Amino acid sequence: MLEDKNQERTALEEMGEFALIDHLTQNFPVSRESTLKAIGDDAAVLDFKDKKTIVTTDMLVEGVHFDLSYMPLKHLGYKAVMANLSDVYAMNATATQIAVSVAVSNRFPLEALEEFYAGIALACQIFKVDLIGGDTTSSTTGMLISITALGEAQEDDIVYRSGAKPNDLLVVSGDLGGAYMGLQVLEREKEVFKVNPNSQPDLSPYSYIVERQLKPEARKDIVELFKKLEVRPTAMIDISDGLSSEILHLCKNSEVGCNLFEEKIPLDPTVITACEEFKIDSTLVALSGGEDYELLCTIDQKDFDKIKGNPNLSIIGHMTDNAEGAHMVTRANAKIPLKAQGWTSFDASSQ
Amino acid sequence: MLEDKNQERTALEEMGEFALIDHLTQNFPVSRESTLKAIGDDAAVLDFKDKKTIVTTDMLVEGVHFDLSYMPLKHLGYKAVMANLSDVYAMNATATQIAVSVAVSNRFPLEALEEFYAGIALACQIFKVDLIGGDTTSSTTGMLISITALGEAQEDDIVYRSGAKPNDLLVVSGDLGGAYMGLQVLEREKEVFKVNPNSQPDLSPYSYIVERQLKPEARKDIVELFKKLEVRPTAMIDISDGLSSEILHLCKNSEVGCNLFEEKIPLDPTVITACEEFKIDSTLVALSGGEDYELLCTIDQKDFDKIKGNPNLSIIGHMTDNAEGAHMVTRANAKIPLKAQGWTSFDASSQ
Repeated sequence: MLEDKNQERTALEEMGEFALIDHLTQNFPVSRESTLKAIGDDAAVLDFKDKKTIVTTDMLVEGVHFDLSYMPLKHLGYKAVMANLSDVYAMNATATQIAVSVAVSNRFPLEALEEFYAGIALACQIFKVDLIGGDTTSSTTGMLISITALGEAQEDDIVYRSGAKPNDLLVVSGDLGGAYMGLQVLEREKEVFKVNPNSQPDLSPYSYIVERQLKPEARKDIVELFKKLEVRPTAMIDISDGLSSEILHLCKNSEVGCNLFEEKIPLDPTVITACEEFKIDSTLVALSGGEDYELLCTIDQKDFDKIKGNPNLSIIGHMTDNAEGAHMVTRANAKIPLKAQGWTSFDASSQ
Repeated sequence: MLEDKNQERTALEEMGEFALIDHLTQNFPVSRESTLKAIGDDAAVLDFKDKKTIVTTDMLVEGVHFDLSYMPLKHLGYKAVMANLSDVYAMNATATQIAVSVAVSNRFPLEALEEFYAGIALACQIFKVDLIGGDTTSSTTGMLISITALGEAQEDDIVYRSGAKPNDLLVVSGDLGGAYMGLQVLEREKEVFKVNPNSQPDLSPYSYIVERQLKPEARKDIVELFKKLEVRPTAMIDISDGLSSEILHLCKNSEVGCNLFEEKIPLDPTVITACEEFKIDSTLVALSGGEDYELLCTIDQKDFDKIKGNPNLSIIGHMTDNAEGAHMVTRANAKIPLKAQGWTSFDASSQ
């Protein structure tokens, strides 16, 4: 399905223990003033001055969170960073550093790890974060990635999940369900490929959703937009598990209820077309499909004029008293309780 | 070999996605003033005020770094934290927070993860660090642990690997080789157990070295001792891979040479006895056996009076001009080049 352009294979055992990490991290210049010492000592040293330190961490497991048969390693490196930065942006903070640990089996040649680190490097460059540490070790099977992202923010700017109030607007960035539908397309092509390895799929009609799956972008721009608009959300979370699950987190942490309007959920036309083709309800995909890495927030009604009509933001509902519970108002004007349904299996994150 | 005292088994799938992490992290109170927000949002929020932030991360893989057939899960949790805190102390800093990610296959019942977290909790309690985040996910096989430790230090107190000067004393805490010899004893008992599962080994003669392997202690006390003695090492590193490898790191980073005196290397009598029994050279074990988590540092000669005779510290050599290279002076007064020999396989760490 994906052509293997890497014909060279250098066994990892051929590299010395510390030569490997030196080699893989050589293209990571330090760009942040807050990075006093990056790679090369027992630990990194950072200086956030009068700002607060933001920390988040995530683990990705081959066969559980990603499938290397259609996920190129460079994209995987990039996406793994995005998943972490997204959590920093969800605090309304600036992402500044990452530490990357990776375990791979010996079937991975050096060139594969180089591709993976090239994706990490691209993410670092575009999002202006420094690689400050990590670990590269062998696994008995498969690939595992653990990334810790750090960020900084003035205390007054930090937005928690717990600040939403009744009557706040419920607002989401971008559009939803694309990453999940992209995954469906890739899974289908993988099955076709198994039957006929010579098939050359035309993925161009699906390029938007496939890109949403393979190369998501964390919404640094939305944090910057809020700053420019002088809007401080009252609560915020990133959408990694699906809209309904994240809304319920905001409701629980803020002790409020919510009315979500089905007709307001932003969907790209490609998502709608793919949903029709796969015979899946597009609302269900938006509610439960993960990995969109959009930001979901609540905004005080007084800020309505500042955000209305902004093409990056959709107002999809409003918060209510806790006693009213969390509901979706359907296109048919029925009010149904929101549930944290989803396709995710056992996967618990404390962040 | 180790009796399974855990008769209850609760499948991880039975727990809800977020209920699992809530359950596992319920016994982790926040004790540090610098922890503004621990678990429960997209990211943790910390406040190190005028101090610098120290960050280090490590990944441990079942079958590569540990063997669950003789490593009880509670000890594993404790040891995994020690390995990380040791890197923070090697910066002459105070460890303050950790984030723990763990991937386990479904063969692990909830009770096994509870044991693992009990070890983490014990380490947090004794070393006064807060658990501020992490991830608990499924793996296709085996167990993987990734821990990020954070710490704080005044800028002037931070000790890098690069500050050693010619004529500085080379100093090590505690004694060396115990963790490696403990591993040899446990590996031997595992083989005996395979042949005769009813054997009841008497490990009491080896209790010191088995404990060094199963329950190492990061040397927080040495950092505190230096503060009390008003000694600031010129360079420092923790001994995770073996003495010779760490000396060579100090030499390379500080651009100095070194004379290490074989007769000065601190060895516990139990290590010497076990080495005789296993017919291994005890110096080789100290030079190349890993996981002792002692601190190795260089100290200016003017501070000699402050440290001499201290039972926690051994002066094992001195630094020289770079051109002289790194050598060990043997008991027979021969001078041989130090090499980073070791039993470690492919395992590259950037920290």
